[in-house]
Amino acid sequence: MRVKPDLPLDAVGVGNAIVDVIANVPDDFLVEQGVVKGAMTLIDTERATSLYAAMPPGIEVSGGSAANTMAGVASLGGRASYIGKVRDDQLGDVFRHDTQVGGVAFDVPAATTGAPTARSLIQVTPDGERSMNTFLGISAHLSPSDVDDALVESAAITYCEGYLWDRPEAKDAIRHAMNVAADAGRIVSLTLSDSFCVDRHRDEWLDLIADRVDLVFANEAEVCSMFETDDFDSAAVQIAELVEVAALTRSANGSVVMFGGDRIDIGVTPADHVVDATGAGDQYAAGFMYGLSIGADLMRCGELGSIAAGEVISHIGARPRVELATLI
Amino acid sequence: MRVKPDLPLDAVGVGNAIVDVIANVPDDFLVEQGVVKGAMTLIDTERATSLYAAMPPGIEVSGGSAANTMAGVASLGGRASYIGKVRDDQLGDVFRHDTQVGGVAFDVPAATTGAPTARSLIQVTPDGERSMNTFLGISAHLSPSDVDDALVESAAITYCEGYLWDRPEAKDAIRHAMNVAADAGRIVSLTLSDSFCVDRHRDEWLDLIADRVDLVFANEAEVCSMFETDDFDSAAVQIAELVEVAALTRSANGSVVMFGGDRIDIGVTPADHVVDATGAGDQYAAGFMYGLSIGADLMRCGELGSIAAGEVISHIGARPRVELATLI
Repeated sequence: MRVKPDLPLDAVGVGNAIVDVIANVPDDFLVEQGVVKGAMTLIDTERATSLYAAMPPGIEVSGGSAANTMAGVASLGGRASYIGKVRDDQLGDVFRHDTQVGGVAFDVPAATTGAPTARSLIQVTPDGERSMNTFLGISAHLSPSDVDDALVESAAITYCEGYLWDRPEAKDAIRHAMNVAADAGRIVSLTLSDSFCVDRHRDEWLDLIADRVDLVFANEAEVCSMFETDDFDSAAVQIAELVEVAALTRSANGSVVMFGGDRIDIGVTPADHVVDATGAGDQYAAGFMYGLSIGADLMRCGELGSIAAGEVISHIGARPRVELATLI
Repeated sequence: MRVKPDLPLDAVGVGNAIVDVIANVPDDFLVEQGVVKGAMTLIDTERATSLYAAMPPGIEVSGGSAANTMAGVASLGGRASYIGKVRDDQLGDVFRHDTQVGGVAFDVPAATTGAPTARSLIQVTPDGERSMNTFLGISAHLSPSDVDDALVESAAITYCEGYLWDRPEAKDAIRHAMNVAADAGRIVSLTLSDSFCVDRHRDEWLDLIADRVDLVFANEAEVCSMFETDDFDSAAVQIAELVEVAALTRSANGSVVMFGGDRIDIGVTPADHVVDATGAGDQYAAGFMYGLSIGADLMRCGELGSIAAGEVISHIGARPRVELATLI
């Protein structure tokens, strides 16, 4: 897999623009509140209100899977841009600020009417696992008209978040971005985002991946869900038949890169201690795509992904706290 | 110093209701942006906009000195309430949520017009020092009518934040709360908040402390500023002549409690590593007042203050992350 050189951008991410509300909770909290551990569950306004009321004091920090990934690409030294939708409200201002000053171009105008900026109520349990409850708000109203075709054509890789597929308007925005990128000869990438998300969209995604996608990111649960199997090795082989490159993360067991008929196993970069797994997959994708942008081989791309993921799980929040460029 | 037993509340705090926006910066950032290191500087809308634009990505977390202190009292097992002013906006909702679920009663209605909820742009340098730039917004419009007299009378200690003195309306609110508390025979407490704040209000505060205050909290710089001296021991003696008890913190050098003609020196509770000094003074006050509420002697009150302060400086943010009750 080779990126086209001499383009203005290394990557553009398309995703739900979300502010994370993160709090530490005991495992009991998840049971009492009926939260699905380790998953991303979409919630409505009423549930968002009642769940927030039950949550301990938290911190607010800009998130959104693809936005986190673009922040990682920029932190590594890459040139990244972002397409997503916020409202003209305080959390929208926070998201824009954090994204822009993190080095990611983000120029989609804020909506002046409609739902508020999206937020995800994230509970972190003592094992470092995160359970996400996302109120999509205005982010789900990202539409094809929000996608700047020239911007997409200017980027070597267009990276789309599977989460967006949950809403028709946003799904159209992804399809549009992927078509523009593919027509311009760019690399089209998709992250499967969440195993329940895969379950909701399995058939459509199998077609999408076969027809449109060059580079898939998924964790073990997601790729297994895609092929309705418990056997990771089998799922890995199956996805490799659909796509040029599949980068598959396996938490503490490292990652596997599938391409053509080949497989590369890559170890983890040990973290001092896992504080919060939020964003590990996002940062793995960042490292991997940054690797592609500098012409690294796939083994090195996976290693760069592991380094970026290792940094982000060592602290609360899904974006890097240190310049990742200093770690590689 | 003895608190009146059998009251519904151990303490009520009166202060600026603020959401902190915290980011790590190198020392150079403070120089480039003209930020006064270690101080709380009031900023206007224009400065807030330009400084925020220059700040790296941050986290948002509920703060406000007196609110932090009440959160600490509640975390220790005490019964605390809070009086402060937010707008009906997203940051106001965050502040109310974090304060209430932290165990602090907070029932002052949100303003429906006027400036937005206050925020403080806080830069944390590698030495763990915090420099605060506060846009007071609606918080400065706290007025005597926001003070529930019955609530103040129901609390053993009324704890007021010196920061409030910077705005006429809020100053009247403090005076009113102190008068109600004193008339009911309760303990009136004031924290001097900031050495520059002391400098702005020295004469008024000398009168206020002598006439109305029973318990003063100050750090070394603040008490020295009060008496325009570099000699801490001299300042400590001078403040002890004005007030029944003065609890004076000295960062790594522990704290000193002055009462009558006596002085107690108290050591620090070692933190694993100082990550962010934000809130150390607030939590010292929390521990100290909780000690009073359980009838502890002044030495033990100071020790409880040190324990609470030691927890809060070990992480980002000015409120406890663990139940402080488990540490004592």
